[in-house]
Amino acid sequence: MTAPSRDILEVFDNPNPERNYEIVHTAHEFTSLCPLTGHPDFATIEVAYVADAKCVELKSLKLYLQAYRNEGAFYEAVINRICDDLAAVLDPRQLEVTGDFGVRGGISSVITARHGDDDD
Amino acid sequence: MTAPSRDILEVFDNPNPERNYEIVHTAHEFTSLCPLTGHPDFATIEVAYVADAKCVELKSLKLYLQAYRNEGAFYEAVINRICDDLAAVLDPRQLEVTGDFGVRGGISSVITARHGDDDD
Amino acid sequence: MTAPSRDILEVFDNPNPERNYEIVHTAHEFTSLCPLTGHPDFATIEVAYVADAKCVELKSLKLYLQAYRNEGAFYEAVINRICDDLAAVLDPRQLEVTGDFGVRGGISSVITARHGDDDD
Amino acid sequence: MTAPSRDILEVFDNPNPERNYEIVHTAHEFTSLCPLTGHPDFATIEVAYVADAKCVELKSLKLYLQAYRNEGAFYEAVINRICDDLAAVLDPRQLEVTGDFGVRGGISSVITARHGDDDD
Amino acid sequence: MTAPSRDILEVFDNPNPERNYEIVHTAHEFTSLCPLTGHPDFATIEVAYVADAKCVELKSLKLYLQAYRNEGAFYEAVINRICDDLAAVLDPRQLEVTGDFGVRGGISSVITARHGDDDD
Amino acid sequence: MTAPSRDILEVFDNPNPERNYEIVHTAHEFTSLCPLTGHPDFATIEVAYVADAKCVELKSLKLYLQAYRNEGAFYEAVINRICDDLAAVLDPRQLEVTGDFGVRGGISSVITARHGDDDD
Amino acid sequence: MTAPSRDILEVFDNPNPERNYEIVHTAHEFTSLCPLTGHPDFATIEVAYVADAKCVELKSLKLYLQAYRNEGAFYEAVINRICDDLAAVLDPRQLEVTGDFGVRGGISSVITARHGDDDD
Amino acid sequence: MTAPSRDILEVFDNPNPERNYEIVHTAHEFTSLCPLTGHPDFATIEVAYVADAKCVELKSLKLYLQAYRNEGAFYEAVINRICDDLAAVLDPRQLEVTGDFGVRGGISSVITARHGDDDD
Amino acid sequence: MTAPSRDILEVFDNPNPERNYEIVHTAHEFTSLCPLTGHPDFATIEVAYVADAKCVELKSLKLYLQAYRNEGAFYEAVINRICDDLAAVLDPRQLEVTGDFGVRGGISSVITARHGDDDD
Amino acid sequence: MTAPSRDILEVFDNPNPERNYEIVHTAHEFTSLCPLTGHPDFATIEVAYVADAKCVELKSLKLYLQAYRNEGAFYEAVINRICDDLAAVLDPRQLEVTGDFGVRGGISSVITARHGDDDD
Repeated sequence: MTAPSRDILEVFDNPNPERNYEIVHTAHEFTSLCPLTGHPDFATIEVAYVADAKCVELKSLKLYLQAYRNEGAFYEAVINRICDDLAAVLDPRQLEVTGDFGVRGGISSVITARHGDDDD
Repeated sequence: MTAPSRDILEVFDNPNPERNYEIVHTAHEFTSLCPLTGHPDFATIEVAYVADAKCVELKSLKLYLQAYRNEGAFYEAVINRICDDLAAVLDPRQLEVTGDFGVRGGISSVITARHGDDDD
Repeated sequence: MTAPSRDILEVFDNPNPERNYEIVHTAHEFTSLCPLTGHPDFATIEVAYVADAKCVELKSLKLYLQAYRNEGAFYEAVINRICDDLAAVLDPRQLEVTGDFGVRGGISSVITARHGDDDD
Repeated sequence: MTAPSRDILEVFDNPNPERNYEIVHTAHEFTSLCPLTGHPDFATIEVAYVADAKCVELKSLKLYLQAYRNEGAFYEAVINRICDDLAAVLDPRQLEVTGDFGVRGGISSVITARHGDDDD
Repeated sequence: MTAPSRDILEVFDNPNPERNYEIVHTAHEFTSLCPLTGHPDFATIEVAYVADAKCVELKSLKLYLQAYRNEGAFYEAVINRICDDLAAVLDPRQLEVTGDFGVRGGISSVITARHGDDDD
Repeated sequence: MTAPSRDILEVFDNPNPERNYEIVHTAHEFTSLCPLTGHPDFATIEVAYVADAKCVELKSLKLYLQAYRNEGAFYEAVINRICDDLAAVLDPRQLEVTGDFGVRGGISSVITARHGDDDD
Repeated sequence: MTAPSRDILEVFDNPNPERNYEIVHTAHEFTSLCPLTGHPDFATIEVAYVADAKCVELKSLKLYLQAYRNEGAFYEAVINRICDDLAAVLDPRQLEVTGDFGVRGGISSVITARHGDDDD
Repeated sequence: MTAPSRDILEVFDNPNPERNYEIVHTAHEFTSLCPLTGHPDFATIEVAYVADAKCVELKSLKLYLQAYRNEGAFYEAVINRICDDLAAVLDPRQLEVTGDFGVRGGISSVITARHGDDDD
Repeated sequence: MTAPSRDILEVFDNPNPERNYEIVHTAHEFTSLCPLTGHPDFATIEVAYVADAKCVELKSLKLYLQAYRNEGAFYEAVINRICDDLAAVLDPRQLEVTGDFGVRGGISSVITARHGDDDD
Repeated sequence: MTAPSRDILEVFDNPNPERNYEIVHTAHEFTSLCPLTGHPDFATIEVAYVADAKCVELKSLKLYLQAYRNEGAFYEAVINRICDDLAAVLDPRQLEVTGDFGVRGGISSVITARHGDDDD
């Protein structure tokens, strides 16, 4: 199985670039590995964006997210990396990525990153 | 079965053009085809608008939406096209079209376009 | 990652073998692979049993179920195999295994196997 | 698009024919055409069975059900035909097919057929 | 508008008369008139049956039920008449008709009739 | 306002006396007075019966129940009296009357009487 | 405030002793004291019975239950005593008393006693 | 903190031993330790019984359950031990103990033991 | 078991320090001891922050929170101490800690502290 | 049982007086007496405050609220008195007290008082 790479993401021309409209994809079956223990983590990932010239093709988004299956990474790194990869290939007007991770050691976690929400 | 065309949409005179009032039509049984695989997609389509001189006739809206049944198109293109076609025949004061598409590859999608929400 | 094998399952002595009592473990994060396409499948697995001499140790059950992560198998085979493996290591008085699999191609599936529910 | 035919249905060997266990597949996105008006009908189809020598392969079941997309047929005929086709290729120990059809003319309908539930 | 008559009901040949299977039609928008005041009554009518040689065609059932729109009749008479008319044209193996009538004078009502459930 | 009397209840001929079928009327807005304090009580009254020769006319049932508005009576007496009055004018095959009374002094009450459920 | 005593309970003649019918009173605001610590306990008390010659008057039931306000007693004793007191003054055909007590030390409790459910 | 011992459990005389009545205590805040890792486990424990000569005093039950706080034990052993200890001090007519344990490694567990439900 | 100390908390480099993004960890199984009675308290603890250079590692957060298991402390002190410890090791851009404590003596409590929300 | 007095309330030093943080205590089992009839009233009392130098100790708050058990007072007087007593012993930065009283004569009541919210 391929490692997660922004090369997996395919795009198509935004059919209506003159309009600002919202696209929300919700992946219900995301799984990656804990970088410390190697045990699997599970999450729901929501990608919400306003496209500029390009939209992400849905099947390639599925394959890109599936590529995390055997990848060891902290929750925070996973969400920021998805946000960065989508920003790189889409150059979107707006983009927010949220990961809602299942219970580990009695603790559940939600991480939310917005493209362009930079520290000054 | 006819291809989707704004010519299918019929209108009638807004009975109360001096008032701004809201009209919401929700089509629970929309289906189109994936442009890459040819497999069927399913969605709920919501059309919400404030009419100006014209209202869309309901049966013609049904026939217009049914015409997507054998049409291959990306989600984003479908929603923008419905938005554009309704805008063209109605010239409405406000218009928002939302498509809530069923799970594909573990991912569900919602696309929302507003007429006049243009990129400057 | 290890392949799924009943050798992963560890048992401990039933602390009260003279009593018939019910044990139900529900694994919310099971994933395996489609044997035809290699794409991931996701399910909730419920294991319900009445122990005889042995109980299954919970962490080993987790590791055993995690071992299906890179295993290609039909839903029906997965559930029967889990049922057979637990039956082999536990020799339980009663055992039922249920898999509730997520939507694939618009279809969700539930498979339920009971140990000893044989065809005559 | 192919017409619905039991030849589309593919089977695989039941991995555990010596056990009676339950398999339930629920297709959430079935659509066919009204034989009188040509307008689309929508339904949820549930297939519940106990396999004998063969199980139905899930992707072929999806393709078989998708083949009704441009088929004109009464609800009652659709459900009995699905029941008969599955019975023919599976020769199952038990089989029940249910169709829950959406509102038409203000009327919703549920049809349920069981293989072997014959009139004497 | 036509008066309600069993002549409106059209039937088609049961596609599977050798099987006993269940058909349930639920009409969500039934309306008739109060025989005393002339005010409209509203109800949900459920028709559940096992067909013998004939099935009722759905559009004719809609038209038959719509024919009660300007008919003044007691709830009890409406439900028994629908039951009798369907029994006459279908000669079904089983038949139950239920009417769930909305609030009138602070009182809601449910009437249920079964074909063949005779007083001895 | 008239006192409650079975003379208020009007009946009409059961349109289908040869069939046993169920009639349920639910009055959501019943009110009477406490016989000790004169304060108003509120209840939902359900009347469920199988008619023999006669059915109760709905408007007369409403007027009959409204006649309790200025009547002081214990809950138990109210429900039994409604049951007796309906039994007297209908001579039904079966009859059950239930009163669900609102909170008084922190106590809510439900009383249920069945015609013919006699103490032997 | 008076101590709880069956003398507080007032009865009236069952208006329909020839019929077996059900009476359920639910007191939502019961409070008594812990016999060990003197701290208040809170419960919902349900009294369900079939009357013989006598019914309990509702206001006296309220006063009887309020009399437990400064009474120290175990949950089990409270429920059995209410059951015994009501049985003594009513001599009912059937009687069940349930107390649903609020959380104390992280533990909530439900006690249910039936008159005549004797140990043999 | 004391180790869990049936000596902690205090009893008082059943106020109504001649009656069979049901007592249910639900402890929402039970915690013990995993015997393998030393990590804390959390559960809801339900104790349901019919007393004979003795009832368990609620505060002592709380202290008894709190004593598991630093005790390492398998779920199955905990539930059977609670069942055995209560059976020993109460000698009840009936007794059932249920533990509903929180998610560990993505798996939740429910264990249910009944006193006297012996293997023959 | 170790006493709670900020030394237990481990951090890792924020994978995206140039972005302001939100991290929320919710611990469902927190328990400490009452400083007056020694009895256990139970709470859900939510930690919400925007990282600067460092993120808190999840397992160390679990171990840090578990270290309160045998610690006697007022609710208010616990929440402020967690807030101070996390602020010390993370030096976050924003931080809010909330504790939702279970019922004690019929009273539940919620304490919320924000880092930097100082009294002037 | 003691009369309600601010002397019952005990305080401890605010562990973090330099921070403004919120403390909310919700008492689910408050009861007092109606000053006119002597009948019991029931309420949920919420105390929300930002501490300055002192916090209220939870057990003393419970005892203080329990002291209203035999106190006759109007709802409005109860809530203002609790607000005044807590303000006197805590001198808080902010304080709000809310009482949600159960149904009396078909009417429920909510009273909310804020410390320092004075009429000028």
